[in-house]
Amino acid sequence: MTESKAPRAQPAYRTGRIEAFSDGVLAIAITLLILEIGVPAGAGDDLLAALGEQWPSYLAYFVSFATIGAVWFAHTVITEYLEHADSVLVRLNLMLLLVVSFLPFPTKLLAEYVHEPDAERIAATVYGINLLLALVMVSVVWRYAVREHLVSPDLADEDVKTLTKRLTPTLGLYVVMILVGLFLPIAAVVGYLLLALFVLIPFGAIRHRPTQA
Amino acid sequence: MTESKAPRAQPAYRTGRIEAFSDGVLAIAITLLILEIGVPAGAGDDLLAALGEQWPSYLAYFVSFATIGAVWFAHTVITEYLEHADSVLVRLNLMLLLVVSFLPFPTKLLAEYVHEPDAERIAATVYGINLLLALVMVSVVWRYAVREHLVSPDLADEDVKTLTKRLTPTLGLYVVMILVGLFLPIAAVVGYLLLALFVLIPFGAIRHRPTQA
Amino acid sequence: MTESKAPRAQPAYRTGRIEAFSDGVLAIAITLLILEIGVPAGAGDDLLAALGEQWPSYLAYFVSFATIGAVWFAHTVITEYLEHADSVLVRLNLMLLLVVSFLPFPTKLLAEYVHEPDAERIAATVYGINLLLALVMVSVVWRYAVREHLVSPDLADEDVKTLTKRLTPTLGLYVVMILVGLFLPIAAVVGYLLLALFVLIPFGAIRHRPTQA
Amino acid sequence: MTESKAPRAQPAYRTGRIEAFSDGVLAIAITLLILEIGVPAGAGDDLLAALGEQWPSYLAYFVSFATIGAVWFAHTVITEYLEHADSVLVRLNLMLLLVVSFLPFPTKLLAEYVHEPDAERIAATVYGINLLLALVMVSVVWRYAVREHLVSPDLADEDVKTLTKRLTPTLGLYVVMILVGLFLPIAAVVGYLLLALFVLIPFGAIRHRPTQA
Repeated sequence: MTESKAPRAQPAYRTGRIEAFSDGVLAIAITLLILEIGVPAGAGDDLLAALGEQWPSYLAYFVSFATIGAVWFAHTVITEYLEHADSVLVRLNLMLLLVVSFLPFPTKLLAEYVHEPDAERIAATVYGINLLLALVMVSVVWRYAVREHLVSPDLADEDVKTLTKRLTPTLGLYVVMILVGLFLPIAAVVGYLLLALFVLIPFGAIRHRPTQA
Repeated sequence: MTESKAPRAQPAYRTGRIEAFSDGVLAIAITLLILEIGVPAGAGDDLLAALGEQWPSYLAYFVSFATIGAVWFAHTVITEYLEHADSVLVRLNLMLLLVVSFLPFPTKLLAEYVHEPDAERIAATVYGINLLLALVMVSVVWRYAVREHLVSPDLADEDVKTLTKRLTPTLGLYVVMILVGLFLPIAAVVGYLLLALFVLIPFGAIRHRPTQA
Repeated sequence: MTESKAPRAQPAYRTGRIEAFSDGVLAIAITLLILEIGVPAGAGDDLLAALGEQWPSYLAYFVSFATIGAVWFAHTVITEYLEHADSVLVRLNLMLLLVVSFLPFPTKLLAEYVHEPDAERIAATVYGINLLLALVMVSVVWRYAVREHLVSPDLADEDVKTLTKRLTPTLGLYVVMILVGLFLPIAAVVGYLLLALFVLIPFGAIRHRPTQA
Repeated sequence: MTESKAPRAQPAYRTGRIEAFSDGVLAIAITLLILEIGVPAGAGDDLLAALGEQWPSYLAYFVSFATIGAVWFAHTVITEYLEHADSVLVRLNLMLLLVVSFLPFPTKLLAEYVHEPDAERIAATVYGINLLLALVMVSVVWRYAVREHLVSPDLADEDVKTLTKRLTPTLGLYVVMILVGLFLPIAAVVGYLLLALFVLIPFGAIRHRPTQA
């Protein structure tokens, strides 16, 4: 990053507690998801069939788990290059955590109403919007950090561009999926699963470890 | 802090595990809040309306999330300048965590009774008192740390005063809101939301990073 | 500790992840307790009275919170002087975490059955035994660490004795309380509250920071 | 490890946040288990008998707690020797966490249906498969780390072999137990308990601390 560093208006914070708190909230959000899958009651006669009927719960569980996993993975890439934070970045990070820790609610909503014609459209839309907001906030946190020169000066401009592209690859596709969800809710949810898995694809070759200046 | 350091009566503790435990409890408390928002049952015919009717749950959720976020933010500022802790500070910190991790209960109480004339007043008051106690404890922890010379000697007296003011800005307003809540519960809850967002306003210009002596 | 260090039979582990995992489990156990306090349903007519009737839930909540807080506090004192761990200490620590994370169950049992003559005796006894086991495990972990020379060699023998006494001060009293609970369950629970607060009393003057050799 | 290190195709990640996130998820999964043990309702007349009837819940709780404890313990051994991670290892670790954090569901399924002839076979099989997958993923993560030269070069080949054997000792036995569970579900669950305790047996003598090169 050749541009000379703009003078800091905001006080600087160490990133240690932001990482620990974010790890904590994301770990809890991802682990609470299992509480939303209820054990079928009174299904002793045909437990296998009863478990099978709950497939929407498993699908919603895996999509939410993969999406939160992808958000956590992107968050670690951001903090890998973050030199320090400022109080605005702390608040943007809190908003990211707010959106992600809200996810168990639409996950349960989807699992509960996926069999009911009208309601499943609403549930899939609320679910899609929550996923989109989570990934938008990841991008907002990263772009703010880059704009405010909070990232490591050793990070080459080329890498910043690649990372920025990588951290917001699929936002457009999420919008498309939300629209699809208005007509084919289940197809949209399968789409979200594929998108989450795509986001989890390693940040591989694009980013080699910057040689410390 | 020019005053010569008073001799320590208490044994000194490192702050690492206090930070980790506090991050853990605050992260769990903030993430458990979503469990209190139930998915409307049997609302397949008009899910949107049923979701709309739950607006008190969303309001209480956001206020509690913002308040716990503000407490965590203030806590990071305190530990940023804490050199070490003593066993009294550890206990005061446990009481702070007790008050904050109690918050999901009045949050649910408020969401459940906000439509019922008399009960909503009680729910809003219990909720307001819990918020007030949380912020009072933040102030108590900080003032004890300053009084017992547990903070960094590099912190200028001027900054200590500003931080002390910053860390207890709105206590009076919370008392006012509790009184308002006795008559206009919803107005009080909206007030708590605004106060939490105000507390989250960055500790901006007032504090520049102290140059290490 | 002047005794020459016995040759190590066990591989040595760093204590970092033991501290992080223990902080995590204890933070979750202490924060889950609030989920066991239900919001009184259908109490719109007299919410204050309904909230008042739940006093056993609040009492059990505070006792469990104070006890887990005391266990965490004692755990930080142990790891403050722990140089490294071995695989037996890791397993003993897991058993400590098992006993503590079981506590939300007897806490709820007590709150549910405290009004029912016979059942309250059983609930108070199960509760007392769980508290006792938690504090016994703290003592077992510390004594094993001392016996296996896992603690810092700078810790003077005098301090080791004092800490050992401090870390197991009230076990006898818990046994007494369990017996009291067979006849006066509520009195026993109040006794547990006082004991937890006593255990939380600072490890004050007895322990000054050992001068590093 | 004498083999010259193969050139790295993948970017390298620090392991700090992987450890913190894994500690968080495993700590939450292990502590959520207690929520699955319900307090018997309306059992005031004979609480002791009602508590006794819940023995399957306690058995499932201890087996799951011991298995997650064993997974965490194995995970700390892996990260003890991990020099850095790459994005594939991060994803494999997420899959390990997915499988482990799913465990509360089959734990509750087992506790709920263990008294019902056909259903208990299905519940025990689902439970056994989840346990097996968790331990398979531990082995996959370790073997990938070794294959991709992500572990410390100081680790002697002999130790790598021993650790690899140690980290995947009982997979065959879990398969046997799953088959047993098709006929004798309770016997299989007791078998899982013994296996978890065996896995928790210290990594004792086999591994002495490698002297840093």
